[in-house]
Amino acid sequence: MIVYFHPDTSLHDPAEPHRFGGVLLPPAENASRSTRILGALSESGGFEVRRPDALDPDNLLLVHDRDYLDFLRSAHSRWREATGAPSSGEAVAYIRPLPGTPWRSPNHVDAQLGVYSNDVDPILEGTWKASLSSAACSVAASRAVHDGERVAYALSRPPGHHAARATFGGYCYLNNTALAAAWLAERGVRVAVLDVDTHHGNGTQSVFWTRGDVLTVSIHGDPEVHFPFFTGFADETGDGDGAGANLNLPLATGATWVRYRPAIDRALATVDSFGAEVLVLALGVDTHRSDGVLRLEDENYPMLGDALRTGLPTVVVQEGGYGEGVLEKAIPAVLSALDR
Amino acid sequence: MIVYFHPDTSLHDPAEPHRFGGVLLPPAENASRSTRILGALSESGGFEVRRPDALDPDNLLLVHDRDYLDFLRSAHSRWREATGAPSSGEAVAYIRPLPGTPWRSPNHVDAQLGVYSNDVDPILEGTWKASLSSAACSVAASRAVHDGERVAYALSRPPGHHAARATFGGYCYLNNTALAAAWLAERGVRVAVLDVDTHHGNGTQSVFWTRGDVLTVSIHGDPEVHFPFFTGFADETGDGDGAGANLNLPLATGATWVRYRPAIDRALATVDSFGAEVLVLALGVDTHRSDGVLRLEDENYPMLGDALRTGLPTVVVQEGGYGEGVLEKAIPAVLSALDR
Repeated sequence: MIVYFHPDTSLHDPAEPHRFGGVLLPPAENASRSTRILGALSESGGFEVRRPDALDPDNLLLVHDRDYLDFLRSAHSRWREATGAPSSGEAVAYIRPLPGTPWRSPNHVDAQLGVYSNDVDPILEGTWKASLSSAACSVAASRAVHDGERVAYALSRPPGHHAARATFGGYCYLNNTALAAAWLAERGVRVAVLDVDTHHGNGTQSVFWTRGDVLTVSIHGDPEVHFPFFTGFADETGDGDGAGANLNLPLATGATWVRYRPAIDRALATVDSFGAEVLVLALGVDTHRSDGVLRLEDENYPMLGDALRTGLPTVVVQEGGYGEGVLEKAIPAVLSALDR
Repeated sequence: MIVYFHPDTSLHDPAEPHRFGGVLLPPAENASRSTRILGALSESGGFEVRRPDALDPDNLLLVHDRDYLDFLRSAHSRWREATGAPSSGEAVAYIRPLPGTPWRSPNHVDAQLGVYSNDVDPILEGTWKASLSSAACSVAASRAVHDGERVAYALSRPPGHHAARATFGGYCYLNNTALAAAWLAERGVRVAVLDVDTHHGNGTQSVFWTRGDVLTVSIHGDPEVHFPFFTGFADETGDGDGAGANLNLPLATGATWVRYRPAIDRALATVDSFGAEVLVLALGVDTHRSDGVLRLEDENYPMLGDALRTGLPTVVVQEGGYGEGVLEKAIPAVLSALDR
């Protein structure tokens, strides 16, 4: 299987801890994830790592707003200029507009950080270049599948499925999965996205909310009690042209393979009814029991790969999954089974 | 002059640093501010400190939404339950809804923190009780003025002018100033609020945005480059019944008394045209040069008090002002001049 990876993705490697639920935690999403996955794929065998071509940033307009892209590209240098922070500084939003009464779109970078994000993720000096390289991987994987590969894997990080048209958050800046799907849709391919990350693919849902040409399906832990909250409920089915083209399959906290497997069946039946020609699989493995949301075990990941082998050409885009030993086992397991 | 102060306000005394502009800073708004002001007033002489009556929380509905009040009251204990954090823990928002597509009002406290705040301020175990005591001071000062005092001072903290109907932020949880004004308006008094804190009184503007019976005026540093950004521009004049009842007088960074004084004249002319019967003065002294927004000097604060002595009965509500030595000099100076 072809694996697309770009070393520049390591330019986004946040280090400063943030407070979640009263505890200061170091960023779980860091550059070591790629190294760990690459090591595991190499050990597993059967993977050919390629560097993707540079991505024309105009491709990003398939998914993101131009003002947001301009912001992401310039934010860190403008923030350094405004604050005198060093190049190693991590720019984080603090202030946002008051809801309910009118406000003016701001020019100051500190205020723009609050407009263009919904979380506490930082923008680093290398975030733009890393995100662009991450997105280049997913587009390259889509291109490979469009050119005839049965399966291709984008080792994209920072991940993407929580990023919306003009919002970063949940470790995500550019929506690699949405971009892979939109790139194919632009070429007339009927695409279904299936997101198996343990967190709702809120950004991807948002990007395609009013589009009927791309189906979005997400299986995830109950957003009533799990990140990213707010969306991911079963009654969210899309709007306008997109009405009926979004399916959420939330699972109760602690759900095991016994409940997970039927959700996949339901997801794939919907993909089938939609008439998808290509599947874009947003592959998070934070469904592992060690992540505290769902309770898949090590041995479920080969089964997950088997279950997801649909016969459709498949673009796999890396999303979440963090735990030591989890990524290393689960990713090769899913990919090897998919490639069987 | 009567000073209303409640010792329970010290129950909100945040300690954890937050990142602003790339630098970790301890909370400037803490319980020592009251102690320092009280010490300075005692040294100055001419002030009589009284403890306000407990505030019936129903009074808060004049300004805030019930669901927001329920949240503020219960947030810390619910957050401890959800996270296992200790009673000393500081609950801070991290995740917020994605803008642009529909989302569901959340039941989980972590998500509610993101809905009900627009900043990185924490909720502590004592925040509700402290905020209620802070609001009790401003209502007591309004009552004293309504009962015939010429001037009364509410040593309210946490401060209030950045809090909106259902949003905390900018160190503010309950809008003490808005509450003082709304309490008087409820009794048929025509009220003008004049906010001289160096930051736009965005919460107060928001609370009265569509009300024509309360005039809101704010003099502050240019929100194009200063907190709280988004609002505080001269073209914001209110809406609906409130059209024409809001006046913003932003001043360029570094403006000195030479430019500040004419803004007061303009503000007071508007207060006069409005036919105000009582002035509610939101008194921040972070206009001091040491705060880096405007450039008032120590000697300008007696002049500020003189300029603000309108002949109208006046409720003074403490807002910002933090610097060592600034609060201690500026607050007694303004109050003594007002009381002359």
